Order: sequence, then C-alpha cells, then structure tokens
Amino acid sequence: MSPQEANQLIIQTLKTIKPLDGDALERAAKQMDGLLKPPGSLGRLEELGIKMAGIQGNNPPVCASKLSLVYAGDHGVVAEGISASPPQVTAIMTRSICAGRAGINALAQKAGAILKVIDVGVATPYEEPENLIVRRIRKGTGNIRIEPAMTRDEAILAIATGIETTQNAIGEIDAHLVGIGEVGIGNTTVASALSAVFTDQDPSTLTGRGTGIGKASLKRKLRVIRDAIKLHHPDASDPIAVMAAIGGLEIAAMCGAMLGGGAAGAMLLIDGFISGTAALTACAMAPLVRERMVLSHMSAEPGHRAVAAKLGLLPVLDLGLRLGEGSGAAAVMPLIEAATTLLSEMSTLDEELIELQDPS
Amino acid sequence: MSPQEANQLIIQTLKTIKPLDGDALERAAKQMDGLLKPPGSLGRLEELGIKMAGIQGNNPPVCASKLSLVYAGDHGVVAEGISASPPQVTAIMTRSICAGRAGINALAQKAGAILKVIDVGVATPYEEPENLIVRRIRKGTGNIRIEPAMTRDEAILAIATGIETTQNAIGEIDAHLVGIGEVGIGNTTVASALSAVFTDQDPSTLTGRGTGIGKASLKRKLRVIRDAIKLHHPDASDPIAVMAAIGGLEIAAMCGAMLGGGAAGAMLLIDGFISGTAALTACAMAPLVRERMVLSHMSAEPGHRAVAAKLGLLPVLDLGLRLGEGSGAAAVMPLIEAATTLLSEMSTLDEELIELQDPS
Repeated sequence: MSPQEANQLIIQTLKTIKPLDGDALERAAKQMDGLLKPPGSLGRLEELGIKMAGIQGNNPPVCASKLSLVYAGDHGVVAEGISASPPQVTAIMTRSICAGRAGINALAQKAGAILKVIDVGVATPYEEPENLIVRRIRKGTGNIRIEPAMTRDEAILAIATGIETTQNAIGEIDAHLVGIGEVGIGNTTVASALSAVFTDQDPSTLTGRGTGIGKASLKRKLRVIRDAIKLHHPDASDPIAVMAAIGGLEIAAMCGAMLGGGAAGAMLLIDGFISGTAALTACAMAPLVRERMVLSHMSAEPGHRAVAAKLGLLPVLDLGLRLGEGSGAAAVMPLIEAATTLLSEMSTLDEELIELQDPS
Repeated sequence: MSPQEANQLIIQTLKTIKPLDGDALERAAKQMDGLLKPPGSLGRLEELGIKMAGIQGNNPPVCASKLSLVYAGDHGVVAEGISASPPQVTAIMTRSICAGRAGINALAQKAGAILKVIDVGVATPYEEPENLIVRRIRKGTGNIRIEPAMTRDEAILAIATGIETTQNAIGEIDAHLVGIGEVGIGNTTVASALSAVFTDQDPSTLTGRGTGIGKASLKRKLRVIRDAIKLHHPDASDPIAVMAAIGGLEIAAMCGAMLGGGAAGAMLLIDGFISGTAALTACAMAPLVRERMVLSHMSAEPGHRAVAAKLGLLPVLDLGLRLGEGSGAAAVMPLIEAATTLLSEMSTLDEELIELQDPS
C-alpha cells in the first residue's frame, strides 16, 4: 500500500462511519422494557443489548461471532529506561500469543473469540510464527524525547493497516464484536503523552507504573513525557500529526482498527489505557465512531480514568486489570454476548400473562 | 424429612465446612505470580483463580461444571401492599423460568450453567412444570408484621431442603461453581428486615424500591419492617430464630444451599440483595462458609451495600442489576471460569525465556 492509497483508504473509511440506527435503538429499548422483568432491572446489560441493536441497525441483534485483535509494535523511547521490561519482551510476547500461551489466549478462548496477532512494528528480530500477520511499517518508532516517533506517511500507513487488517478479519468471520488490544514495551509512556495532548491534562496525573517500574523510573518517565511534548508541540486538532510525533505504530494501527471496525458495523471493545488512547485518536478523526465503542474496563493504570472521561464512556468492569493484550476486552465479551441475548431469548410479560390464562 | 432429621443434616453440614486449603492457595498464588505477565496485572481475576484453588484444595483448579439454582417462595407480608407486583407473579416467574423464557435462562444458558428451580413455598396454585423440583415446606410465609414468618421447625426444614437439593444438584454434575438466586414477590421487604438484624443498621438505609414501588409504598414498606422487628425482637445470635420470625422460605433454603454447597466443596456465587441476606444468615451459622463465597455484583437495591460490607466481600460486577433470579451470579460465571483458566492455560515467563534460547 502506498501512502497515497493509505490516505485514500482512511478518507473513505471516515466517510463510511454512520451514526447508530435510531429506529433499531428505539425498537430495542421498547422491547427491553416489555421483557419478563421489571423495567431497567438488568441495569447496564440492558443498555449494552440496546446499543448492539443500534450498531447493527437490527432488532433483535446478534453477537455470535467475536474477534480479538492484538497489534504489536516497539518504541524507541525505551532507550530512556522508562520500562520495567527489556524491549525484547515485545517480540517474546508476540510469539507467545501466537503460540497460545499468554493471558489473552486463555481469556479469548473462554470468550469463544478468534484471535489475530498483527506485527506492525516489532523491533527485535524473531522467528515469525505462521499464524502471525506481518504488516511491519518499520522496526519500532523513534525515541520521542529527541525525535518524532515516525513520519506522517508512516502514521498514515499504520492507521490504514489497522483499517485493512481489521476489516479483513471481520470479513472472514462476519464478526459482531471486536476487542482491540496490543503488545508494545514502552507504550504506557507513549499513551501518557498522547492522552495528555487529547485530554489537555498534565502528564503527572496520567502517568503510572506500567508493567511495574519503581519510583526513580517513574520520575524519569514523567520527565521524558514532558520533554517529548515540549519538543514536538503536538496539536490535538491534527490527530495524525500527534500520532506521528509522539505515538506508536501499534497505537496508530489500533486507531485504524477502531475506524475500520466502526465502518464495518461491528461493536468495538476498547481495552485498557493504550487502547483507550487509540480510541481518543480515532474519535478525534471521526467523532461518530465513539457511538460504536464500549469501554471494557477501568484499567489500574492511572491515566485510563481521564481517557474514559474524555471518551465519555463508562467502563463495564473494574477489576484492576493492567495487562493489555486486549485482555479486558476479551474478559467482557461474555457479558456483551449475554446482554445481546436478552433481546432474542426472553419472552415478554404480556406473553406470559396470555399463557397463564390459556396454558395450551 | 422430619424436623429432627433436618436438624441433624444441618448440624452435620456445619461440621463439614472446612477452611480453604492453605497449601493449594500458596501454590496457586506462587504460580499466578510466575505466569507470563507482570505480577498482579490481571487484578481481581488473579484473586478469583487463586480462591478457586483454595476451595478445591488443588492447583491448577478447574471450573468446568456450573450450576444455577433458583429457589421460589411467597411472603405473607405482601398483604401489607409493599410490592409493585401482585403475589401471583412468584408462580408466573417460577413457571416461566422452568419454561426457559426469563432473564436467568438467557444468562445461565450463555454461561453454560445447568439451571434448577426449586419451589420451597409458592402460595398461588399453578400447574407444576415437569422440570420443577417441588419441595414446598408451606404455601408462603406468615405476614411478619403481625405473626412469625414460619415456625422454627419450618425454618429448619427449609434450610435442610436447601442443603439437600443443592448437594443433589452438585452431585449430578460435579459442579465447581454454584450460583444461588431466588424468586419471591415481597422478598426485598423480608431481606431488609433480615439485614437490619444481621448488620445492626437502621432499616431506612437498607430499604429500597424492589421491583419498582412508589414513594408512598416505600414509606409503608419501611413501617412494616420496623413493626416486624419491634414485634419479634429477633436476636442475631440465633440465626434460625431470626429466619423463623422475619425470614422467608426461599431465603432459608438459599442459606441452606450455601451451607450445603460450601460443605460439598463448591465455590458459591452470591447474587443480589436477597441472596446476600441468605449469605449473612449462613455466615452467622458457619463463619467459615464465607471463604467459599464470591459476591457476584453490587445490586442497585440500596441494602446490598451494607450486606456486602458485613460479609466483607467485594462485588465482581457493578452494573446496576436488581432482577434477582440468580441473574448476577450467572452473568459473572464466565469471568470466574476465565480466572480459573489462567492457572491451567498460561505458560510461565521462565518457560518462554527457555524457549527463546532453544526454540526446538
């Protein structure tokens, strides 16, 4: 794909994202109220089922086919000593997830989701598993403290790659639900920088311990984020430029995955802090895509709270998860599926009363 | 079963409840920390997996077989006009759940749980479905505002019936996980009274709108609860007497289900407010059973917060559910299953590093 083709794909995708279907929303809400239960008594499960109807433009909606996507990429900023894990762990985890041995594998399998792993920018050389989708834009980003993460063309290519790989994966199984996660050592640093720009908050409230750094490293991490923002002066009104300056290849691809998945009519499950930052970028490019998003959980990473507030999305789970990999999205899938099922499996109070009078 | 036999069964069951297996807990916690993820990064899912190991006395634990129990019973106190629904709805819902058309059916089916419905005290005559387990102690309780809910012998019989039906159901499928729910118009009134006694709080903080009563009915409901407590002077140190005075047949049976399920080595999923009140009663009889409980969710019913605090259990979900029927317990089952799976499905970081050096 050339940068021009990538740009065209993005423009086309942004145009394709529609608002939710008001008629389907209304029919689903009315049906939900008439089901055999006190109105509202299934709380947020009711909202989620109704949202699925609005996304699909159909009532009752279905949630039979689920997809779990993991985008992998490395970050030049690891040279600043901001992560507890060595950068090689991105390659290790990418390979382990392909081999079915990581946290996301256990969770996606239990959820009945098809898992796809896409390398858009791992830096360490590794033996590429057969089931890995290799779409590397470049081998890791630049160190955002001293240089841009990537060129604008690379950011465009990464976003378009997210769109394309997601739409291919959705097409293969006709997915109704797409969880969007990542692997990328160093990416909480980048996500803190991105979320500072998109939420207009000070990085100190958005920066946490990632995979488990100590106090000194946390101080260094915060300084690196401040330096990067000072150097690049990212302008939130040009989200692609922000991504190029201080973003990540896997984060750009996740942003594309959300745009592509939204355009393809799937419900988008945002995972944790990194995924939330990709969601902020996607919403900056196409505000309508937000209506197709569900925030899986409130991450233990402190910046996620501000990201959730900016997205205007309430998390479904709040279990202190901070693994990434799309693990929170996979964990919440059975609940989304159950919520959707209410509209097709439950009878109405009216039907039950008729049955009582005439038990034939 | 005679009251003497019932009493014997209860005494025997209380003796059988063991503390969690410290060795299995320790092994599971150690394994969880060594898995291919930053320690603690799967938050409360890690705790739940470890708890399952402690309950089963085995690591890795399993969670293959799930049971969803619904106990049904009526309440004489409905004569006081404290419910939004007519008392016949208990029979209607019992029959609808047996027919597979209610909220719990959709949720239990998605969770892969076997559902059992047990009538321990429905008052309205109805055609009993073939799959209903009929173990009626009496047809509804007395009106607690003016008389005891039941005799002490009846309370003992209801508790023993809960033990027996739960242990039978567990035995049939070797269940690892048991969700315990109910149907019983009027039972939030009774649960508020019971929880006031067991938490030693004023009923006003524990009384809510149930299936949806208005302001005037809420005032009446609170007065009825105060009258009942004043009339019977229930003493929390004699939980069976409390249950007989101001309890419910299905609540007593659920208390028995928790004692019986705990003795049988299952993990107990407490549902909402009513189920939580049964849990308080069970813990008053056998404090150790608490270690085998997981609080599925924080109900929208206001008293549930005080019940959870008294139980010392954090809810897993907080989605504004207030349906009952064991719906919250069924909704959380896939998460418990996923949490358990972590210990058997994930590899360790050590294994992955060896593999990297020697990818044979």
